[in-house]
Amino acid sequence: METESYIDLSDMTFEDEGAAEAQMLVKVGEIYRYEDLGAITSHVYNGNIVLLDITSIANDDLTMKRVSAELRNVVRDVNGDVAGVSKNLIMITPTGVRIDRNKIRGGF
Amino acid sequence: METESYIDLSDMTFEDEGAAEAQMLVKVGEIYRYEDLGAITSHVYNGNIVLLDITSIANDDLTMKRVSAELRNVVRDVNGDVAGVSKNLIMITPTGVRIDRNKIRGGF
Repeated sequence: METESYIDLSDMTFEDEGAAEAQMLVKVGEIYRYEDLGAITSHVYNGNIVLLDITSIANDDLTMKRVSAELRNVVRDVNGDVAGVSKNLIMITPTGVRIDRNKIRGGF
Repeated sequence: METESYIDLSDMTFEDEGAAEAQMLVKVGEIYRYEDLGAITSHVYNGNIVLLDITSIANDDLTMKRVSAELRNVVRDVNGDVAGVSKNLIMITPTGVRIDRNKIRGGF
C-alpha cells in the first residue's frame, strides 16, 4: 500500500542520523605486506567492516599464512568474522557481524 | 590436572551470543537477471549487507540500468548505501551502514 495517512517520524529521524553519523562503515582496502595489517585491523577493532584486496600477497605463502593467522586472532578477539568472499578478496567483520557461507544464487 | 580458578563469563557469553544470533549478516550473492533482485533486496530490508556479483549482467546495459535504479531506491528507502567495491562486485548496505569511498592503501 502506497498511501499513508500519517507522517513516519522514524523515517525522518533515520535520514537525519544517517547523514551525520553512520553506525558502521565498510572500508575497502589493499594489503601489500604483513606490516600493513595493523592499520587494517584497527578499523575492525573500531567496529567497522573491511573488504580487503589481497592480490599483492596472494602468491606469497608465508605472508598469506601470517596474515590469515592474525586476522583469525582479531575476529576471535572481537567476536567478528573473516572469510574469502571473492577471488583475492577477504572480508573481515567486527563484533556481531557474521559472513553467511551460503551464497545467494539468483532467486534465493 | 587442569584447574581454573574462575570461569570466564565474558568469553562464554560472547561465544554463545555470536553463534546463536549475530546482529547483522553479510550475504554474498550473484544476480543473473533483473527478476533476481527482489530476493537480494529483501536481505537489505532485513538489515543485512549484500555483496553482489554482477558479472552475468555487467554487459547488459538495460539490465544494469534497471538494477542500479532499483538498488538506489532501496538504499534511499532504508538509509543504507550502495557502491561498486571491486570489478563486477556491488555492495548494498542496510540502515546505518555506509561504504567509505576512500580506499585504504597499504599502511592507511
